Amino acid sequence: MKRFLQAITLASCSLLLAACGNLKNSDLASNSTTTTSKAKKYETTSSTDGGYSVLLKKGVYKTSPISGLEATNYDNSVDESAMERGLIRVSKKVFSTKDYVIQEGQQLDETTVTNWLGRYSKSNKEGLNLKSNGKTGSTTRNPIILQQIMEEDFYVKSGSSYKLAGISISLGLNSVDYYTKTTDGSEYSTKISLAKRRAFGQKTANTIVSRLHAKKKLKNIPIMVGLFSKTDTDSLVGGTYFSYGTASANSSKISKWNSVNEKTQVLPTVDGASAVSASDESKFTSFKDEIEDYFPNVSGVTATLRYYDGKLAYESIAITTQFYGYLQVQSFAQTVMSRAKKYLGTSSPVEITISSVNDTQAVVAKETATGSYRMHIYGGN
Amino acid sequence: MKRFLQAITLASCSLLLAACGNLKNSDLASNSTTTTSKAKKYETTSSTDGGYSVLLKKGVYKTSPISGLEATNYDNSVDESAMERGLIRVSKKVFSTKDYVIQEGQQLDETTVTNWLGRYSKSNKEGLNLKSNGKTGSTTRNPIILQQIMEEDFYVKSGSSYKLAGISISLGLNSVDYYTKTTDGSEYSTKISLAKRRAFGQKTANTIVSRLHAKKKLKNIPIMVGLFSKTDTDSLVGGTYFSYGTASANSSKISKWNSVNEKTQVLPTVDGASAVSASDESKFTSFKDEIEDYFPNVSGVTATLRYYDGKLAYESIAITTQFYGYLQVQSFAQTVMSRAKKYLGTSSPVEITISSVNDTQAVVAKETATGSYRMHIYGGN
Repeated sequence: MKRFLQAITLASCSLLLAACGNLKNSDLASNSTTTTSKAKKYETTSSTDGGYSVLLKKGVYKTSPISGLEATNYDNSVDESAMERGLIRVSKKVFSTKDYVIQEGQQLDETTVTNWLGRYSKSNKEGLNLKSNGKTGSTTRNPIILQQIMEEDFYVKSGSSYKLAGISISLGLNSVDYYTKTTDGSEYSTKISLAKRRAFGQKTANTIVSRLHAKKKLKNIPIMVGLFSKTDTDSLVGGTYFSYGTASANSSKISKWNSVNEKTQVLPTVDGASAVSASDESKFTSFKDEIEDYFPNVSGVTATLRYYDGKLAYESIAITTQFYGYLQVQSFAQTVMSRAKKYLGTSSPVEITISSVNDTQAVVAKETATGSYRMHIYGGN
Repeated sequence: MKRFLQAITLASCSLLLAACGNLKNSDLASNSTTTTSKAKKYETTSSTDGGYSVLLKKGVYKTSPISGLEATNYDNSVDESAMERGLIRVSKKVFSTKDYVIQEGQQLDETTVTNWLGRYSKSNKEGLNLKSNGKTGSTTRNPIILQQIMEEDFYVKSGSSYKLAGISISLGLNSVDYYTKTTDGSEYSTKISLAKRRAFGQKTANTIVSRLHAKKKLKNIPIMVGLFSKTDTDSLVGGTYFSYGTASANSSKISKWNSVNEKTQVLPTVDGASAVSASDESKFTSFKDEIEDYFPNVSGVTATLRYYDGKLAYESIAITTQFYGYLQVQSFAQTVMSRAKKYLGTSSPVEITISSVNDTQAVVAKETATGSYRMHIYGGN
């Protein structure tokens, strides 16, 4: 059914988006029940536990003008999501969720960032990527290291309004830079070592900090910069942060870099790779084996585990099934929940999705490490 | 990421399914933690509130051998799901969830049902569909009315075992029968009135009851038969039940038919159709308008409402978005939840999915009419 509904909703996209263009000046306020009340200039949407409240503008969510910009044609949506999620997580170390509210970055515009992501050249003196050295060999050329820039802004309440009080920037740094020698020609790639990413990232962060602090309105705003390693395009898991540092008000550089310890792993491991945690792997294997024994139509069970600072922080399990029966899904989800309680760890939130090829059929999840499992069966009774 | 994982899991399908073939004799028991304990012959998986417990066999879920069989090449997966869900719902009126446990139907086998779904002919005297009258005109031919048969079995505890104590059969009756005059030729269709569906369904139900009750092992088992109207293949919503009746032990016919009042509607309505409930429509419109005002990237909001016996029994809302940002999804889901609390009805469970074209991003739902809304953001923090 969802597919049918999607067809409708997509068909009506252009219509609704056209209408949306006018909504920025909408005068709906947060708690109004009619459309005649005045909008508050600023509002926030409440957050989940431990998250930031989000600052709206005239009741409307503000999207960042630089979202989606990349230096080269790069395709790994897993990275995009890990990069944003991680930037917010690392930001919490600098800008407390109690004192600050968040808004997608509004200080960098599309033209600026497009120039910054380019190579340095006579025609683009703003370019942050290394200038071309004229070579095209994998190991001899200057690779594109800076692939993407993200920004998040942090505000504090000031009287009845909010004022900008912090900026977080993420630099998405390529582990592998893909390139062609001629348009539409074969794809080549240059590997970039962590040491090279780190040195380039730190230098580039300082350049950005000094450019931003040169602006009068940003002079006094602390700027956190996170360094994010993008993965190769085949990777099933998103990239990870390895370092961050903060430039205080007026400072033109980051003097201290802190390391970030993030790992992401898919289970079962492939090619005999060893698990980050043998204990987590063994719990998952017990869970998987029992699930596969109880139902005849389970076609795959995989887990993605995220470790922050050496501890399991999130476990997401995807179960793919061949069936689509209502009773099967109900009964299977019940079994999955009881086995999750029995086998899976108690130190992280857990998300288990049960999907056929076309649709998510059910989700079983506990939202916090110590929370209760709950299940939702799509389509109800 | 889900797409990537699906690729893996699908790749490993054949391998795992091959392995599953051996699992029917698995000796894992419900509460065992090792693989060395003996399987109980019968177990049940617990149910959701008000649902049936499901009877397993040697720890494994039993699927019905007739699932998916249809008289003609018919494509509406929405029907399939509505037909099964509804059969279980109607069964509750006859076989109490307290006294009975359920198992997918095991009494009818594939050969029998394939024959039954055929036309009556010299070579298929078991055929339940009308014999061909040799005509091919839309209004002159004998249409295929019986499209699909589903079965559910109900068991009661008997000592340390379970014994069969009830059967529910659903007859999926075409509202429109699609046919071609030559192989791969143009498609024609014959409409079948409700009166015709009803008369044919009741007669066919009695034939099935007498065939089943003629079997010694089923003689004393009460049989409930539900009559389900299949929709046309373009319909966005599944078909509905309109009647059911029960044949008691030994009886060869159903003497009393009860009407079932089910309606399903998609909002916003199209072509100026009027809503089943103006009040539910108005609540949905308020919800939709405010959601669309708060976020710039909402591309579609549609609802599917199911009414049983004139009352709203389930509301499922699908929100399609253009975005994929982590912060946007978090913030949007919060807003959706607060607007759902404010506007949507208190007389039914509610399910709200937030999806991009490729993925479900979040689900906000209350599982019962009076329950609390909860949200799950896919991918976690």
